[in-house]
Amino acid sequence: MTIESSRNETAAGRIRLGMVGGGEGAFIGAVHRIAARIDDRYTLVAGALSSDAERARRSAEGLGIAPERSYRSFAEMATAEASRPDGIEVVSIVTPNHLHAPAAKAFLDAGIHVICDKPLSLTVQEAEELVALREKTGLVFAVTHNYTGYPLIRQARAMVAAGELGRIRLVQVEYPQDWLTERAEEAGSKQAEWRTDPARSGAGGCIGDIGTHAHNLAGFVTGLRTEELLAQLTTFVDGRRLDDDVQILLHYEGGARGMLWASQVAVGHENGLKLRVYGEKGGLEWVQADPNQMWFTRFGEPKQLLTRNGAGAWAEGTRVARIPNGHPEGYLEAFATIYSEAAEAIVAARSGGAPDGAVTYPSVEDGLEGMRFIEAAVASSKAGNVWTRLRR
Amino acid sequence: MTIESSRNETAAGRIRLGMVGGGEGAFIGAVHRIAARIDDRYTLVAGALSSDAERARRSAEGLGIAPERSYRSFAEMATAEASRPDGIEVVSIVTPNHLHAPAAKAFLDAGIHVICDKPLSLTVQEAEELVALREKTGLVFAVTHNYTGYPLIRQARAMVAAGELGRIRLVQVEYPQDWLTERAEEAGSKQAEWRTDPARSGAGGCIGDIGTHAHNLAGFVTGLRTEELLAQLTTFVDGRRLDDDVQILLHYEGGARGMLWASQVAVGHENGLKLRVYGEKGGLEWVQADPNQMWFTRFGEPKQLLTRNGAGAWAEGTRVARIPNGHPEGYLEAFATIYSEAAEAIVAARSGGAPDGAVTYPSVEDGLEGMRFIEAAVASSKAGNVWTRLRR
Amino acid sequence: MTIESSRNETAAGRIRLGMVGGGEGAFIGAVHRIAARIDDRYTLVAGALSSDAERARRSAEGLGIAPERSYRSFAEMATAEASRPDGIEVVSIVTPNHLHAPAAKAFLDAGIHVICDKPLSLTVQEAEELVALREKTGLVFAVTHNYTGYPLIRQARAMVAAGELGRIRLVQVEYPQDWLTERAEEAGSKQAEWRTDPARSGAGGCIGDIGTHAHNLAGFVTGLRTEELLAQLTTFVDGRRLDDDVQILLHYEGGARGMLWASQVAVGHENGLKLRVYGEKGGLEWVQADPNQMWFTRFGEPKQLLTRNGAGAWAEGTRVARIPNGHPEGYLEAFATIYSEAAEAIVAARSGGAPDGAVTYPSVEDGLEGMRFIEAAVASSKAGNVWTRLRR
Amino acid sequence: MTIESSRNETAAGRIRLGMVGGGEGAFIGAVHRIAARIDDRYTLVAGALSSDAERARRSAEGLGIAPERSYRSFAEMATAEASRPDGIEVVSIVTPNHLHAPAAKAFLDAGIHVICDKPLSLTVQEAEELVALREKTGLVFAVTHNYTGYPLIRQARAMVAAGELGRIRLVQVEYPQDWLTERAEEAGSKQAEWRTDPARSGAGGCIGDIGTHAHNLAGFVTGLRTEELLAQLTTFVDGRRLDDDVQILLHYEGGARGMLWASQVAVGHENGLKLRVYGEKGGLEWVQADPNQMWFTRFGEPKQLLTRNGAGAWAEGTRVARIPNGHPEGYLEAFATIYSEAAEAIVAARSGGAPDGAVTYPSVEDGLEGMRFIEAAVASSKAGNVWTRLRR
Repeated sequence: MTIESSRNETAAGRIRLGMVGGGEGAFIGAVHRIAARIDDRYTLVAGALSSDAERARRSAEGLGIAPERSYRSFAEMATAEASRPDGIEVVSIVTPNHLHAPAAKAFLDAGIHVICDKPLSLTVQEAEELVALREKTGLVFAVTHNYTGYPLIRQARAMVAAGELGRIRLVQVEYPQDWLTERAEEAGSKQAEWRTDPARSGAGGCIGDIGTHAHNLAGFVTGLRTEELLAQLTTFVDGRRLDDDVQILLHYEGGARGMLWASQVAVGHENGLKLRVYGEKGGLEWVQADPNQMWFTRFGEPKQLLTRNGAGAWAEGTRVARIPNGHPEGYLEAFATIYSEAAEAIVAARSGGAPDGAVTYPSVEDGLEGMRFIEAAVASSKAGNVWTRLRR
Repeated sequence: MTIESSRNETAAGRIRLGMVGGGEGAFIGAVHRIAARIDDRYTLVAGALSSDAERARRSAEGLGIAPERSYRSFAEMATAEASRPDGIEVVSIVTPNHLHAPAAKAFLDAGIHVICDKPLSLTVQEAEELVALREKTGLVFAVTHNYTGYPLIRQARAMVAAGELGRIRLVQVEYPQDWLTERAEEAGSKQAEWRTDPARSGAGGCIGDIGTHAHNLAGFVTGLRTEELLAQLTTFVDGRRLDDDVQILLHYEGGARGMLWASQVAVGHENGLKLRVYGEKGGLEWVQADPNQMWFTRFGEPKQLLTRNGAGAWAEGTRVARIPNGHPEGYLEAFATIYSEAAEAIVAARSGGAPDGAVTYPSVEDGLEGMRFIEAAVASSKAGNVWTRLRR
Repeated sequence: MTIESSRNETAAGRIRLGMVGGGEGAFIGAVHRIAARIDDRYTLVAGALSSDAERARRSAEGLGIAPERSYRSFAEMATAEASRPDGIEVVSIVTPNHLHAPAAKAFLDAGIHVICDKPLSLTVQEAEELVALREKTGLVFAVTHNYTGYPLIRQARAMVAAGELGRIRLVQVEYPQDWLTERAEEAGSKQAEWRTDPARSGAGGCIGDIGTHAHNLAGFVTGLRTEELLAQLTTFVDGRRLDDDVQILLHYEGGARGMLWASQVAVGHENGLKLRVYGEKGGLEWVQADPNQMWFTRFGEPKQLLTRNGAGAWAEGTRVARIPNGHPEGYLEAFATIYSEAAEAIVAARSGGAPDGAVTYPSVEDGLEGMRFIEAAVASSKAGNVWTRLRR
Repeated sequence: MTIESSRNETAAGRIRLGMVGGGEGAFIGAVHRIAARIDDRYTLVAGALSSDAERARRSAEGLGIAPERSYRSFAEMATAEASRPDGIEVVSIVTPNHLHAPAAKAFLDAGIHVICDKPLSLTVQEAEELVALREKTGLVFAVTHNYTGYPLIRQARAMVAAGELGRIRLVQVEYPQDWLTERAEEAGSKQAEWRTDPARSGAGGCIGDIGTHAHNLAGFVTGLRTEELLAQLTTFVDGRRLDDDVQILLHYEGGARGMLWASQVAVGHENGLKLRVYGEKGGLEWVQADPNQMWFTRFGEPKQLLTRNGAGAWAEGTRVARIPNGHPEGYLEAFATIYSEAAEAIVAARSGGAPDGAVTYPSVEDGLEGMRFIEAAVASSKAGNVWTRLRR
């Protein structure tokens, strides 16, 4: 146990943060706010927290946001904050999917950095426009593929990059849930409603909500890009308008092959994100529900159970850990790491630094890659499960 | 703990058993012999244990087989034993795959029951001929898809049949190993040699060796037949002549969908056979390496860890268990159950009983189904991973 | 998955917090600060962060504390803050053990609420004085037995109280670590230095550092008070001045019996806190390293794996959880719960409310109980491992 | 996977075996018989299977024992078999405890080798007499502390002996069950009846039935002898005549310290035998319910999950394994190993060889050690939980 290493907060010079979405009753907004607080790099000062004005006002009050900085729309907020000397430096966009791109565009146009939930947009075209706009503005743009923030995922990525597994042959990634086993969208669940509504979620249901996370994580750890895929999207629940199960074969650049399964109807799974990677020399296995350990096997040697900050931990992981090994960190800490890495880029940008020198947080380009993945999967499935190249 | 229930041996009237293959150095022959002994229903009295005469003789001697009943070929053995008043009643065929069908045919022709290792044959046609011949002769024919003998697999099958999971939606089955990660067939491993040799293994490598087990197990538990499949067979190791990794999508009759993965190059896996089944009401998960427990979840209720012979155990499982819960049974006991169920059929047949009234052991028809699975998978993969119907 | 329930922050009216100890290089200070931030109930405005003046100044600066509120001693801080209109309302004491009681006394005397790390003091007498002083002042006093903040621990306590396990017979609690397997205190570890130094840690080493946590947790969940104990404290590492392994038998009031094991030399354990409770009707098992699940068995029924916020979750647990089931919460969130519950009491006290109406955080009385436990254990061990009653 | 190594049966010259106890309805008799068959070293030819004559006859018939060799008592059997030219060479004694010593004495007196269940006798004195008699006769005498037969337990013992863990500091061993949580002895369970009856079980209940197994296993793996112990035996269930829970502190020769817990009322445990050993350099953990894996940690290195026959397996373990890694062996195979090792000694004795040259099976001396352990524990508990030396 190395109980003396701990991440330093740098509260001095906290970044002024605004939020779009995330009012009362939302799940992911509160997660973003806790994530922003954990390492003390942000202070929340403005919001357009709900399309319902009264709910927006009430939510802002509860969060200590001054009444005059609780806005009725993201557009109003972007304009108003851009003109304040103490205006927000960065905005978190935590709305349903269909608002991601319009909101992000508004804030980039206003010169404000963006942290945006995934999937990035409704279409590949929107995502490409955001990539172009970000490049033009030079602003920081993080997409919260939050699972990449887990210390052992950072270590896994570093291990693959260092050749510990040898050339990668196989990727097995899955993200089963069971919360949509029955027709929750008709039973009053707000979350289920918008996540199964094409107008708010886009062309993909399960694939956009969790399939993208699985795909992103596999790519993050292996460093491999998907060349083409063969997908079967299924809607098991009668009357549902989007897919609730996804089965995909993947061809990665360089010859590795993958299988991806995501499901919202797999009874017994809560958030069963699991990644396995096999190379010519070694194999890795990691499960989100128990994120402080990771299996690693060198071919011909006993399996090792690596732990966050434990014996033999890699610097890439310990750098983003906060407490000693044996004490579990969780989802919120991994999420916080994305926020803190964005914070470093934003602070660098304050003084004209190049925030993108070594972007470690998931970027707008990663968000675009996710949209290409969704697009190809939907197309492959509609065409009868045929190999389909990702648009480049 | 119910420590009073125990399976009765019925040594009286042991069945006279012969064996083809399984001489010194073989793995599966010894397994079959232990399986035959555990419940004391058989006595091994004859053998054609090796194509190498000296090795056959030495092996027979070690096993207490009389010298005159150690034969030079299965053909000689079938003829000679059929003409003895105390000749064998049943033969175990434990050779490499290419000899399964010829040997089985010889013994059926001689009026001798057959227990045969899997895959049943090299081709679907051979398998169909065996099915026809068995029907004509009315003899007992068991194929050792041994994993079906695990008590909790029996319980799982009964639970699905009783509707505990509701209508089945999804099957996830995998069988990863890592023993062929490197080119073991060139490094002196006899097992690796014949298992990667098309002449002895047939058109499938990994798919025939372990893919068939996975496919059989999923079908056994769910009671579902595969309608069509889409397969990608890969040979990752340079110079290998057969596939060492298999990724398959499955369409079951009735609309369930499945994914099957089998691999011999997945570093960190020994014999990672794992089955997961999800229905409209519940889900199941079972892993062969820890076969005395099984996860079961009813939608909306806490997960349960069911144990062999434990609280709430089903009769279908306890009927084939031997010792109290908490004491692990393993691979050999599951294998023994196949032997003991075949024994019951053979004993019934002695008195003209219909051995096939309620066949619980894997049958020659199951063996044929396995061959159809291999055939379709090889064809699908060659055709570029397209949906391919199993021959009916 | 119920992803719509989430804990509301109430940032408005944040509590003004000071800290004693916790400067650069300390482990537990940063933990307390993150815990204070997670639910946004506190703002850190003052500190006496280190006995080294330069380190104190630097630490304060990094944390955004105004220079004039970075104090050279806790005494100075108590006096100065008490006289400010915007002075701190509560202080966190995160020093080595020997300073807990003097500092706590200073702040209570100054009319400032206290959150203090454990063990509460060096002696039972000091602890009793703190109890008396807190009663006299009516201030809030929380002791950070942080493991009581885990949602499933709250649920476990509620389940025991509701009779789900029946009358409790047995408690098995253990807290093995391995970080002191070798003589780390001579190898430059600051943590090891003070934790093995009687002058700073008190009469107990392992027993004070982690044994008290184990004892507290067992009492918290079962609601049982320890009547007497029989302890064997061992120092395995040559030259070490305090115990590094603790084996204890416990007699609880009402007849339940317990075993407690804590160790700092158990190779392979990081922070292996584990609690098992067995009653006439059921049993529970929980492990800190994987805190989002808990085993529960009703006698004669299958084991259940309960999850935080999962199916059948109890309100006592979900009330202190923040994110949906399947997404792991960890050590920092459990710690934050103690802070947030103290915050509720402090806010109630602002308006003259009785903060102690339903104290859910570990109290100064719990801290005293921990000191009695240490005292009895040290005495029992010295007397040759004889039954020793806790002082009442 | 090394699938070519497999244990050779040596059926030729099977040993003639008799059995005392183990008739219909008994649990452990069937276990012994399967164990005797697995490696094909024995043939069961005689029995005194039940004190109930009709049951004895029926049981013998079912097992294929000739009617004239089904005896009414062990005394009759010892005399009669000793006088037959084809008489039994060895007897298995699988009765309730009180008959172990008288029966063993009778067969030793008759010149017949003995395999006896544990605990060896009712008293230390009986056990000492058996040790003396065995020494005088030079016969083989195995006591079925069957858990010592697990391959990984053999490897663990070898690893400790080779210094892989360094000097041993701590032993944690436990054997919790829950089958006597309620008063099963009044509810018609034959097993519960005699196991809670002092006349048939001896002075110890839980301690004799499973505590001895735990104690034996710890001693087997560590090679350490118990010097003294401090025990607390409890009877939780009203009206029960023997202890159903055991808590013990152990002082081993050389300074290691241990804790042992055995219970029959720990709800949720089936047969939870678990051993943990910690030394100055490393730690080990093994659980009987999942016996094909074992945790091993070298201090400062990642945990390793060792597997039976897996990467890095030790010869001491693979020597007693039968099938490839990844395929689970279980309780019956471990039990069979004791039988096969006794068989080797018996075969050696046929030709006047010294069967005791390197006894690997648990011996009569181990049985005596178990009786000393029970005696000391009962005495310590009665004396008020005081340190009590084992009689030497």
